[in-house]
Amino acid sequence: MDIKFTQISSVGEFGLIEKFNSLASRFANSKVLQTIGDDAAVIKPTPGNLSVVTTDILIQNVHFDSSYTSMRHLGQKAAASNLSDIAAMSAVPTAAFVSLGIHSNISVEMMEEFYDSLTNELGRFGCVVAGGDTSASPVGLIVNVTLTGEVEPERLATRSGATPGDVVCVTGDLGRSHAGLRILQREKKKYVEAGQPADFTPNFEGYDSVLQKHLIPEPRVELSRNISEKIHVHSMIDVSDGLISDMLHICKSSGVSAVLDEEFIPIDPITRRTAEEFNEEPLAYALRGGEDYELLFTIAENDFPKLYSLEGYIRPIGRIEAGEPKVTVKRKEGTAETHSDFVSYQHFSRRK
Amino acid sequence: MDIKFTQISSVGEFGLIEKFNSLASRFANSKVLQTIGDDAAVIKPTPGNLSVVTTDILIQNVHFDSSYTSMRHLGQKAAASNLSDIAAMSAVPTAAFVSLGIHSNISVEMMEEFYDSLTNELGRFGCVVAGGDTSASPVGLIVNVTLTGEVEPERLATRSGATPGDVVCVTGDLGRSHAGLRILQREKKKYVEAGQPADFTPNFEGYDSVLQKHLIPEPRVELSRNISEKIHVHSMIDVSDGLISDMLHICKSSGVSAVLDEEFIPIDPITRRTAEEFNEEPLAYALRGGEDYELLFTIAENDFPKLYSLEGYIRPIGRIEAGEPKVTVKRKEGTAETHSDFVSYQHFSRRK
Repeated sequence: MDIKFTQISSVGEFGLIEKFNSLASRFANSKVLQTIGDDAAVIKPTPGNLSVVTTDILIQNVHFDSSYTSMRHLGQKAAASNLSDIAAMSAVPTAAFVSLGIHSNISVEMMEEFYDSLTNELGRFGCVVAGGDTSASPVGLIVNVTLTGEVEPERLATRSGATPGDVVCVTGDLGRSHAGLRILQREKKKYVEAGQPADFTPNFEGYDSVLQKHLIPEPRVELSRNISEKIHVHSMIDVSDGLISDMLHICKSSGVSAVLDEEFIPIDPITRRTAEEFNEEPLAYALRGGEDYELLFTIAENDFPKLYSLEGYIRPIGRIEAGEPKVTVKRKEGTAETHSDFVSYQHFSRRK
Repeated sequence: MDIKFTQISSVGEFGLIEKFNSLASRFANSKVLQTIGDDAAVIKPTPGNLSVVTTDILIQNVHFDSSYTSMRHLGQKAAASNLSDIAAMSAVPTAAFVSLGIHSNISVEMMEEFYDSLTNELGRFGCVVAGGDTSASPVGLIVNVTLTGEVEPERLATRSGATPGDVVCVTGDLGRSHAGLRILQREKKKYVEAGQPADFTPNFEGYDSVLQKHLIPEPRVELSRNISEKIHVHSMIDVSDGLISDMLHICKSSGVSAVLDEEFIPIDPITRRTAEEFNEEPLAYALRGGEDYELLFTIAENDFPKLYSLEGYIRPIGRIEAGEPKVTVKRKEGTAETHSDFVSYQHFSRRK
């Protein structure tokens, strides 16, 4: 395999930006009047709509491991995680602002692959790169993506509208991304333990669906719009930290409590098999795994039948109740566990 | 002096974010309906206005040298450079989105100082932090700020409206920030050469105005609004790369040429004295120095008298002409130099 490695210094900052702009210019959005090339981008809001804005930073060796995250996957995931936040507001994405810090051990070809994938993923949803900042970095790759979108005021879904009696729903299935991560970690460990041989072949057979979910998650942009077209969503969040933490975000913002039923929490068979291979509990993947980028939302009970017609798998998994913010998970065997603190990954915490 | 150093790991990500939120919540903007605490911020645009968005990344040891940039200065400058981009569109800032990557050698106290200063500087202009992302960093401090603003369509100033016959104007004076940088570099060199003694006292006497301009530049947010209230600005940019490069940006975007007169280019006496101490040309500081964050704009000749009444120093420094994009600087001694390529700092370029 012949992989070209052109040093970024040989094209310079302006040369690299030109390549980025040419990739970005394949997409357009009629609301974005001025993209890259001025002091700021200019967007014409649809009259009456609200603007939404979200931002995410990805730092090499903190948020991603370049030994199993290709530039193509990284570009797509950087877009997807932000698109998912826009989807969680019931909004339509408009424009992206991409800041990059790039170390000299990264080639022009690698950055083109990243940017091609990023702009493609955004473009699929009508979202265009309208600005950014490109810089050198002392270590690895730094990516910050800010996304803007817009939503009709009556369709806006926040974390704070959950009401006692609501049905808690989730799209897709949970824990699959974590299963993919476990497989990637296992194969990397084998590779490192074998002394990193050039002919090492990771064993990914049969794990396609969990690997894909981890490496290139699908943001639920269209499904979110389809849901809010049919019914009034009381509260919504995307599952990025794990079911318990994200449910708890809704509970704390809304001042309510949630009771979830283990038997209704959707877990894919491959996720289940993967967890069992590691002697881990499949439910723990769903409850604490994170990065599934599914939608978790609450609606009035009599609205649920209106969602039957929607493509995409929507499952009722519990109830909102009055009371102190907490999440209770009822287990199949009749026991229950209750969480009132976040259980997800925290930066800066002391590790054992 | 008793400086506290609390490790960020002792308060954790959520503890740090709580401190940030409490500093941010001192300010509000009635257009920002939802700030930190949901998947995205929610902004209600003023009907009929356009939205503008800009973003900037600052990476330690690439964009700033922590040996002479305090956290207080850094916070203010991170705000100011983005506010200046909003000002360059004639827009009013609304909301900021702040992503941080923080290495473990940075204390809670340092980050609080940074965030206090950042939010204060934004708050002065009615701009509120409405979102962000806080993460660990493998090296130093990484800061990405995205700023949104809004502007009436008829007052929007871009880089592309310069017209032959326009007068080229600049606010304040140029090259002062670069003079400040040279003094800081000189004192740092002395300190390093002296073996970094604990009792080293840098000699900053008499250089206050140039140091201040470099460390805490003043974004021309209000002046920009005052200008566009009185006259129609044909084109505008903020001077961040140096006069030649920024004038060339306007020329390339507008398809015109510019002729600037050395004798009208405003250079402060301390800037002049500093350059002479280094045996450097004061004009070079103004032409290539950068980071002055003054406004460079072009207007119809008969509009210029309408600006007399404005507080703040506005100077006509040249003319827009028809022709290929280039910038000509007429020297006092009758010669002229012409630039059709950018001469400012580029990331990733080979250094001699």
